[in-house]
Amino acid sequence: MSQYEITPQNRVSRVPDRGHYDTETIYNIIDEGLICHVGLVQDDQPVVIPTIHARKGNTILLHGATKSRLMQYAQSGQKICITITLLDGLVLARSVFNHSMNYRSVVLFGRGQIVPDEEKMECLKAFTDHLLPGRWDDARQPTATEMKATTIVAIPIELASAKVRVGPPKDEAEDYDLPIWAGVLPIKQQILPPQDDPKLAEGISTPDYIREYVNKH
Amino acid sequence: MSQYEITPQNRVSRVPDRGHYDTETIYNIIDEGLICHVGLVQDDQPVVIPTIHARKGNTILLHGATKSRLMQYAQSGQKICITITLLDGLVLARSVFNHSMNYRSVVLFGRGQIVPDEEKMECLKAFTDHLLPGRWDDARQPTATEMKATTIVAIPIELASAKVRVGPPKDEAEDYDLPIWAGVLPIKQQILPPQDDPKLAEGISTPDYIREYVNKH
Repeated sequence: MSQYEITPQNRVSRVPDRGHYDTETIYNIIDEGLICHVGLVQDDQPVVIPTIHARKGNTILLHGATKSRLMQYAQSGQKICITITLLDGLVLARSVFNHSMNYRSVVLFGRGQIVPDEEKMECLKAFTDHLLPGRWDDARQPTATEMKATTIVAIPIELASAKVRVGPPKDEAEDYDLPIWAGVLPIKQQILPPQDDPKLAEGISTPDYIREYVNKH
Repeated sequence: MSQYEITPQNRVSRVPDRGHYDTETIYNIIDEGLICHVGLVQDDQPVVIPTIHARKGNTILLHGATKSRLMQYAQSGQKICITITLLDGLVLARSVFNHSMNYRSVVLFGRGQIVPDEEKMECLKAFTDHLLPGRWDDARQPTATEMKATTIVAIPIELASAKVRVGPPKDEAEDYDLPIWAGVLPIKQQILPPQDDPKLAEGISTPDYIREYVNKH
């Protein structure tokens, strides 16, 4: 099991026993998240932008329109922070003070570099595979013009940490006797049954890989 | 209907017809989001931290342990960005290039100021009401010591914009005849049935406001 270095930048200092630094925990959270939040700085102003990501080994991929603010910044090599958060539950303690959430989050740091043309197709496949396995082979592949309009930036992860809370509430010892319900309301990101495009040509049915994906989520 | 000023900082420049600047759209997204992602800058390094928020009028509230990095920064009056993102669906176009997501997101900008002691109780109630209406009156209220351990920061929203995508995929005209399934996989953040704390005292049943909340979500 490999592990990121722990420095003041990525150390989980609040509730340190929720901190994890191993790549297995961190990669699993990155891969389960459908989107990430990218932090950048423009004229001293922090900006947080939600976007789709993919992971290849220890590298995060972002993509977007070549002219977009995010892509311009990401390819500049300036410092980036990317955060992925999965919500797992509302944790309802007896005391207001001990209310919490169950969650799994990753905060990672790195710098972007543009992906050269000859590697772009493989990266685009990684995005599609991340969102919906099976879709790449079914959909119409990108043309040269579409490839040109898309910038892909690779961000090798330099530092990262995960923070994970699981389990029931933790109350003060003297509160356990209070006549107050306590427990967890689990949260799940559910994928609902597919909605056909109203313009779908007749005779096209939902592919198996989509049905399987819905059943799995 | 009131509306934020549109400046280069908050203007939605990519796909501008997805941009919204009215408070109604923006407040609804803020209120539906259970968490937000806060962007700050430390030594030129952007940092994005997920946390719980609440809204009071045009002000976002954040809270946390007095010594936490986030609270220290938020109360310093430095520039902050807060982003709230709701995922509504995977948008599966015929072409890989036109794949997208349905989402509602808000990016807002402001500066924090510490909430004085006499207003803290009311703000704590706002957090609890945001997560789970009815819980505040049921749970054990904060003590003076607990109040002291919690810092609350108020961030009046100076600028904000929402970006919203809804509806089916949009393909290139020539792609509609391809024999490829297209449509939307809706995504819903589901609240599952309550799990009792294993240490729950006997004879305490799940309160009505919790059952109603689960049924509503």
